[in-house]
Amino acid sequence: MFNKQELIDFCNTARESYLAHISIDCVVFGFHEGQLKVLVLKMKNEQSWYLPGGFVLKNEPIEEAANRILKDRTGLDEIFLQQFHVFGDPERSRPHREMYANMLPPSENWFANRFMTIGYYALVDFIHVTPTPDSHSEACTWCDLADTPQLELDHGIILKSALDTLRLQLNYQPIGYNLMPKEFTMPELQKLYETILDKKLDRRNFQRRMLGFGILTRSEKPRKGGAHKAPYLYSFDLANYQNALKEGLKGGW
Amino acid sequence: MFNKQELIDFCNTARESYLAHISIDCVVFGFHEGQLKVLVLKMKNEQSWYLPGGFVLKNEPIEEAANRILKDRTGLDEIFLQQFHVFGDPERSRPHREMYANMLPPSENWFANRFMTIGYYALVDFIHVTPTPDSHSEACTWCDLADTPQLELDHGIILKSALDTLRLQLNYQPIGYNLMPKEFTMPELQKLYETILDKKLDRRNFQRRMLGFGILTRSEKPRKGGAHKAPYLYSFDLANYQNALKEGLKGGW
Repeated sequence: MFNKQELIDFCNTARESYLAHISIDCVVFGFHEGQLKVLVLKMKNEQSWYLPGGFVLKNEPIEEAANRILKDRTGLDEIFLQQFHVFGDPERSRPHREMYANMLPPSENWFANRFMTIGYYALVDFIHVTPTPDSHSEACTWCDLADTPQLELDHGIILKSALDTLRLQLNYQPIGYNLMPKEFTMPELQKLYETILDKKLDRRNFQRRMLGFGILTRSEKPRKGGAHKAPYLYSFDLANYQNALKEGLKGGW
Repeated sequence: MFNKQELIDFCNTARESYLAHISIDCVVFGFHEGQLKVLVLKMKNEQSWYLPGGFVLKNEPIEEAANRILKDRTGLDEIFLQQFHVFGDPERSRPHREMYANMLPPSENWFANRFMTIGYYALVDFIHVTPTPDSHSEACTWCDLADTPQLELDHGIILKSALDTLRLQLNYQPIGYNLMPKEFTMPELQKLYETILDKKLDRRNFQRRMLGFGILTRSEKPRKGGAHKAPYLYSFDLANYQNALKEGLKGGW
């Protein structure tokens, strides 16, 4: 948390620069080799963890704000963030209101405002990014989803909602282009789905359905190596993949 | 539009009552007997049409705000509104800023603010509701989707985005409980899907897929009447339907 002078400085800047009442919080899921993690920040001088978040500049489009905030807070740049929900309970920011209530009168205290927060999420290959904490934070780290520390405010609810959205999205949008190597086997792709859904899937159904989407190209040559039966290699058909991102996967109505 | 005194009165109330920078707009689709329509308002003293919208009270949860606004503006009550997107381009509210710029200085003019708007949508049976314009509006009416008047601000984009969301939703959530009679034939249900999607669907595929979701119960008795072969009647299995609303339709991963 801020000390009194830091709070005064922050509030002065915030009133000048930011829209009142609105914040953005980012849920960045990291996937690599069968593990799913989430990026969290530990604030300096607090035993508390948050999703990376921040405020919107007075003249800034919100999509740009989400990207700037994620970059400022974690160092992650050029991540495709998707808006998923606004969290608008008037009580959600009460803990911050109370935390700073003794330091400044409400009229000068940015955190005396009610804030609704716009949730954004992304899924990245976590070996390709290097989280770097900002100056307010003591740490910026990946946590196993099953082992996430308790998050402050309603950030636990926001994380749960982002995960639900990601799982639902598997039913109508393709996934994996930035997560899989250029060529991969069907079991490797299945592992991505199983990790996100946190359940086992039937091998034959997975393959039939996935091929039905028309977003995969099968390579002529199977993978070399020691396997007694070399598996087929697939890659994404980028044109069809991008079309499915826009139009939804085949198999809809 | 407001005249100067109306604007002054509105701005005084708004500053007292509402959160700055945030509005809500509602896209209410109406369905009845194979027609899909959208509810729009015509403002007094303007040749212009809007989606029903408004502002959030300082201490009001946003879901309550959406319902209150829809009720205030259109008379529609107890409609299940779903949040679908925030529209956050800083230029989106410029036309209102300019429309009122000559009447009041920016510091007193509520509409000099930038507003981002949270979009909500709903699908209702339009014979069961009676649209009633509020005191700012000259008319509150259903328009055919294909024949919607040009909407002000970015309301045309918001409508398009709501329709895309509704169509996508058909792939993972059940629909129709409040729109179909208690008992209906498969072709009647298919017509609902075809109307929303604005395309013909294959009869056999539709039936196979719909039955696969496990949300329909087939009645013992076919419909009476003159048809040479009486069609089966179906009703929704409410427990399974509500479960599918929460968990997504069967046939996902």
